[in-house]
Amino acid sequence: MSIAEKNLALFLLGPGNALIGESPYPTITDEHDIIIRIAYVGVCGSDVSFWTKGGIGQKVDPSRPLIMGHEASGTVHEIGSAVSSLKVGDNVAIEPGLPCRRCLPCKGGRYNLCSQMLFAADPPFSHGTLRKYFKLAEDFCYKLPQFLSLEEGVLVEPLAVAVHVCRLAEIGLGQDVVVFGSGTIGLLCAVVSKSMGAQKIIAADVNASRLEFSRQFADTGIYKPETNDTSEDIARKIKKIHNLSKGADTVLEATGIATCIGAGIHVLKKGGTFIQAGLGKPEIQFPITTLSEKEMTMKGSFRYGAGDYELALHLLESKKVPSLSQLISSVSAFENTTEAWERTRKGAGIKNLIRGPQG
Amino acid sequence: MSIAEKNLALFLLGPGNALIGESPYPTITDEHDIIIRIAYVGVCGSDVSFWTKGGIGQKVDPSRPLIMGHEASGTVHEIGSAVSSLKVGDNVAIEPGLPCRRCLPCKGGRYNLCSQMLFAADPPFSHGTLRKYFKLAEDFCYKLPQFLSLEEGVLVEPLAVAVHVCRLAEIGLGQDVVVFGSGTIGLLCAVVSKSMGAQKIIAADVNASRLEFSRQFADTGIYKPETNDTSEDIARKIKKIHNLSKGADTVLEATGIATCIGAGIHVLKKGGTFIQAGLGKPEIQFPITTLSEKEMTMKGSFRYGAGDYELALHLLESKKVPSLSQLISSVSAFENTTEAWERTRKGAGIKNLIRGPQG
Amino acid sequence: MSIAEKNLALFLLGPGNALIGESPYPTITDEHDIIIRIAYVGVCGSDVSFWTKGGIGQKVDPSRPLIMGHEASGTVHEIGSAVSSLKVGDNVAIEPGLPCRRCLPCKGGRYNLCSQMLFAADPPFSHGTLRKYFKLAEDFCYKLPQFLSLEEGVLVEPLAVAVHVCRLAEIGLGQDVVVFGSGTIGLLCAVVSKSMGAQKIIAADVNASRLEFSRQFADTGIYKPETNDTSEDIARKIKKIHNLSKGADTVLEATGIATCIGAGIHVLKKGGTFIQAGLGKPEIQFPITTLSEKEMTMKGSFRYGAGDYELALHLLESKKVPSLSQLISSVSAFENTTEAWERTRKGAGIKNLIRGPQG
Amino acid sequence: MSIAEKNLALFLLGPGNALIGESPYPTITDEHDIIIRIAYVGVCGSDVSFWTKGGIGQKVDPSRPLIMGHEASGTVHEIGSAVSSLKVGDNVAIEPGLPCRRCLPCKGGRYNLCSQMLFAADPPFSHGTLRKYFKLAEDFCYKLPQFLSLEEGVLVEPLAVAVHVCRLAEIGLGQDVVVFGSGTIGLLCAVVSKSMGAQKIIAADVNASRLEFSRQFADTGIYKPETNDTSEDIARKIKKIHNLSKGADTVLEATGIATCIGAGIHVLKKGGTFIQAGLGKPEIQFPITTLSEKEMTMKGSFRYGAGDYELALHLLESKKVPSLSQLISSVSAFENTTEAWERTRKGAGIKNLIRGPQG
Repeated sequence: MSIAEKNLALFLLGPGNALIGESPYPTITDEHDIIIRIAYVGVCGSDVSFWTKGGIGQKVDPSRPLIMGHEASGTVHEIGSAVSSLKVGDNVAIEPGLPCRRCLPCKGGRYNLCSQMLFAADPPFSHGTLRKYFKLAEDFCYKLPQFLSLEEGVLVEPLAVAVHVCRLAEIGLGQDVVVFGSGTIGLLCAVVSKSMGAQKIIAADVNASRLEFSRQFADTGIYKPETNDTSEDIARKIKKIHNLSKGADTVLEATGIATCIGAGIHVLKKGGTFIQAGLGKPEIQFPITTLSEKEMTMKGSFRYGAGDYELALHLLESKKVPSLSQLISSVSAFENTTEAWERTRKGAGIKNLIRGPQG
Repeated sequence: MSIAEKNLALFLLGPGNALIGESPYPTITDEHDIIIRIAYVGVCGSDVSFWTKGGIGQKVDPSRPLIMGHEASGTVHEIGSAVSSLKVGDNVAIEPGLPCRRCLPCKGGRYNLCSQMLFAADPPFSHGTLRKYFKLAEDFCYKLPQFLSLEEGVLVEPLAVAVHVCRLAEIGLGQDVVVFGSGTIGLLCAVVSKSMGAQKIIAADVNASRLEFSRQFADTGIYKPETNDTSEDIARKIKKIHNLSKGADTVLEATGIATCIGAGIHVLKKGGTFIQAGLGKPEIQFPITTLSEKEMTMKGSFRYGAGDYELALHLLESKKVPSLSQLISSVSAFENTTEAWERTRKGAGIKNLIRGPQG
Repeated sequence: MSIAEKNLALFLLGPGNALIGESPYPTITDEHDIIIRIAYVGVCGSDVSFWTKGGIGQKVDPSRPLIMGHEASGTVHEIGSAVSSLKVGDNVAIEPGLPCRRCLPCKGGRYNLCSQMLFAADPPFSHGTLRKYFKLAEDFCYKLPQFLSLEEGVLVEPLAVAVHVCRLAEIGLGQDVVVFGSGTIGLLCAVVSKSMGAQKIIAADVNASRLEFSRQFADTGIYKPETNDTSEDIARKIKKIHNLSKGADTVLEATGIATCIGAGIHVLKKGGTFIQAGLGKPEIQFPITTLSEKEMTMKGSFRYGAGDYELALHLLESKKVPSLSQLISSVSAFENTTEAWERTRKGAGIKNLIRGPQG
Repeated sequence: MSIAEKNLALFLLGPGNALIGESPYPTITDEHDIIIRIAYVGVCGSDVSFWTKGGIGQKVDPSRPLIMGHEASGTVHEIGSAVSSLKVGDNVAIEPGLPCRRCLPCKGGRYNLCSQMLFAADPPFSHGTLRKYFKLAEDFCYKLPQFLSLEEGVLVEPLAVAVHVCRLAEIGLGQDVVVFGSGTIGLLCAVVSKSMGAQKIIAADVNASRLEFSRQFADTGIYKPETNDTSEDIARKIKKIHNLSKGADTVLEATGIATCIGAGIHVLKKGGTFIQAGLGKPEIQFPITTLSEKEMTMKGSFRYGAGDYELALHLLESKKVPSLSQLISSVSAFENTTEAWERTRKGAGIKNLIRGPQG
């Protein structure tokens, strides 16, 4: 290869404004660095938020062009001198971040909370995976088993998100779980919950076809909220229909929508655990008194940490989760990236992929 | 004694409507029952909520007269045949509840979440301690050490509340803690935090004299929010003034007010823990995205459970907390109960007591 | 029924000395009491220890006759006035203990550590289930689902033991587990581990036919120690054969034999968890330095606690564990109890049952 | 400075065989590297084990000369280009290890279990601090506050050991703790326990003067075992004398001696926690049945991990522990290192220091 090699990338300039440009070919600066030739990049809700609003959560309006993309698979293209676990040509799933490894969160087991984390497509510092070549550390690349395609390899990232959510929830044997949202994360939270021993798993979503998919893919019970349902209504009906008289042990919230969050609080049993996995509006109406009176535990879940990718791959290799290829709804060419974003914005399909730059 | 003995009690009939009447003298039905002659009853914020609104949280508008009172001390008046740890004449602090002891929360270590709990002054089932004689189980009576007066004995209850809060928070060595609210619970949360090894403890309250008291009583740093401070303002100023650049490890919220709850979320460091101890409006505006992005843990705290009273008494006996007599602002006669409620409603003093019925 | 009803029981008088006699028909003294007509009683290793040595662990040589038996199923024969979850004629699994419900361990979630526990066949205070009628509390009786026979109902007890072990071990998704001993408890630990998400599960036992059964029943890898294997040898070979280069995440020790315990310590990875479930000689040679250098966690497991029976029944109802009828090797008449003990002593079969007194 | 600068070091060649030689001046290879001019090195029990037996635990008989020393303080002599928290001339306490930062234990919060750890004086790979210049990473150097001398700075290491022990023990408010061994680690475990809220703290040691020091320095109760005391005797007497009728909540074992370990098991209450901090003979007689029947938790403690040094310094800065200068019994010149080892071997004094090479 040559350091003159072109490294095409997809830049977001602002809401609704993206273009393909060139970025520098990455340089190996650490002996554990690896350069990946990107194969596929997945589109997730946060990409849509960047595309429509220029950012997400507290991170809005980047002041300079940002290379998008953080769910990705690819092939090892170049390796640093100390790399021993991978060789050129290996197909890998990518954990798209680089923590500082030196701060207390990093050394204490929560590197996802590192304040110097360089995460893909995370303004203002860090560009994403939607380009031809992407550099990362050896220990953040995970070799794909033979039977997993590079398309499926993209889905290791959202599966690791779900593993992180379910580990935070401490899902245990016999627990009843309600999952709000039947998009990629919600569906994967359901199947990971099952692998951890959950008993009843109920999916709630306003989209009937997603629910039907959830029933088949993740073997969940389902509930479709009606138009005028309040949070209390949704909670009451889920309890009644699914015979959860004392409420759910665990709620996994993957929508970020106030009504769902409220329903989750109300459907939970006393002493139960609620994980906020979805990101929506920064502020919502929230039934705080119920949280107190039930002595609930509520946790935010942010990305993934030590062991999450390993467990995601274990789930795939052991067939404890069904084939993720069922989740892939479309594959777009790199040049058609914004179409894939639009498709996702409209809620079409489950997971839309973008092929890395060719040639 | 005689079963014909009068058992005067203070009944709440509805908002602003209370009267003194007679209730039956309690009957010993279990060999571990104890009948207490009530000495003092404390007034807490929830009493004020009942007095002004007829209830608290989800429990509003009792359909029948309710005997009020749940913080109390007294003297053992009669004991069941199997009682061995106490004798008639002993002074005790009272844990004013009776769980079923048979359900999964009871057997699993969280009897405060028992759905059959009979808790003092908890509608619709269970009357309170504002009467002459009150029956409870031996293991919910705690003998007061010699040096603790019956007045101070009342404060074992809010101290147990604070112990429960701080144990849920898992306050540990060297942690920085921000406590919102400098009423009884907030002050006691501060001193319990210190006993568990906390480093900086910052009290926030809008009342300057309470803050000054907090500084002296609980050795806290202080912050008094300004009139137009937003949640973010309060958080930013506390961090700056008290040199908490990464935020607090732990927030203990003892007001139930939306601005304070929001400030608590914003002042917390990544991965920190927030305990909701105060009860205010059932629904509030809540910065949910921040909870997610910081991967916070938020827990409601509800009453107290196994070991909390024992630890409260340990704190008093070992002098790990300062003398609680400093918190007692007034003592009213039983006949003047509503005056004590009014005093508390107006925020006068810290802890107002009511003397049990005399004669 | 009549209080004059005969209540035949099997009394142990000392090592090798047992006889059938009469015990009083139990009296309902609490409104939640239930009297069970015993159907079957299982024989476990501790029964053999009583039969051959007069006791087990620290509890040897009872000074008075002891009614044996603690694994049992039966039919509800009489109920107290407040019993609502069961009715006469219901088939139940039995949790054969009665804790005080009032001490700190009881209220704090560990009633199995109650020092006033009245446990079946536990000298000096408490008689067992090997009799016609046995009284216990409603919340310690678990209704058997239709498809479970009373024979299989006996095995809910050892399954609850295994649930307790695996919950103490905090078995989690993807963990590699080594189980020493392939008797009833070891086999059930293996299947419960699998239900909690374990990855590799390796059974070690000196008995080849038990190992072969383990492979089929519990889908485990296996290892049969050779005659002269030291602890280190066993650990090294298990690691090599089963490709556990860093060692096991968890060891579940169900033999109580020093060589196995040592092998468990050596086969564990750094930071791993070891649960001592089996009881053998009171003192053994133990590789303490390895425990320190690996910073292991080692826990004793004692009986079962809150939720364990519920989860055992969940495992059976959801078919997350295979049918336990495969474990039943023989059923003896009550009159032939000592033959069942002898059969167990000789290691014949897996679980030998005794039918309750007839007529 | 000059790379030709001499770097005198103390080499152990084998049991009883040490000499001073030259080692290369260290080279800064990472931008976060720091080179420390060693001021003082402490002698600990493991040094004595190396001096007398050529190694410790599983690590005996190094095949090549080993530079000794792992407790140390010093002054920053040279810094890498990215170092921002320290400058040349700063006095520091040293955490004498370098984990790989990339393996699962490192990323999961337990870098002390990293199998590629380069720890000071840890054969076969890694030399120690007993030399003039020692290189380590910025985040393993801790600036000493003004009021702490370089002599006291050496004691931050054993204090971090004690912090690690007490955090593993999860010492909490009101717990009763028994500490076996009143050497440096035992004494520091006692004072750290107190800072975490422990109630009674009892020190046990055979050396009367150490016990007397423990009483004054760490405010402990004491017990001196008698010559013929068995483990059970020691446990029974400690319970009786110190009114621990149900046993201790926590045992911290800092001797590694079988009789003390056994006494610790017997003195613990049901469900209690035992931490093995001391290293002695690899194998001991151990009361395994008692561990099971009490359902104890026993953990090995190995060195220190994330946050332990920070907490050790917090304890010193906040004066939550008494001045550690009281522990320093002697200071030897570098040339007299083996005398300091001999002094420690004979049990003279508490902590003997060696001055770094001068000139």
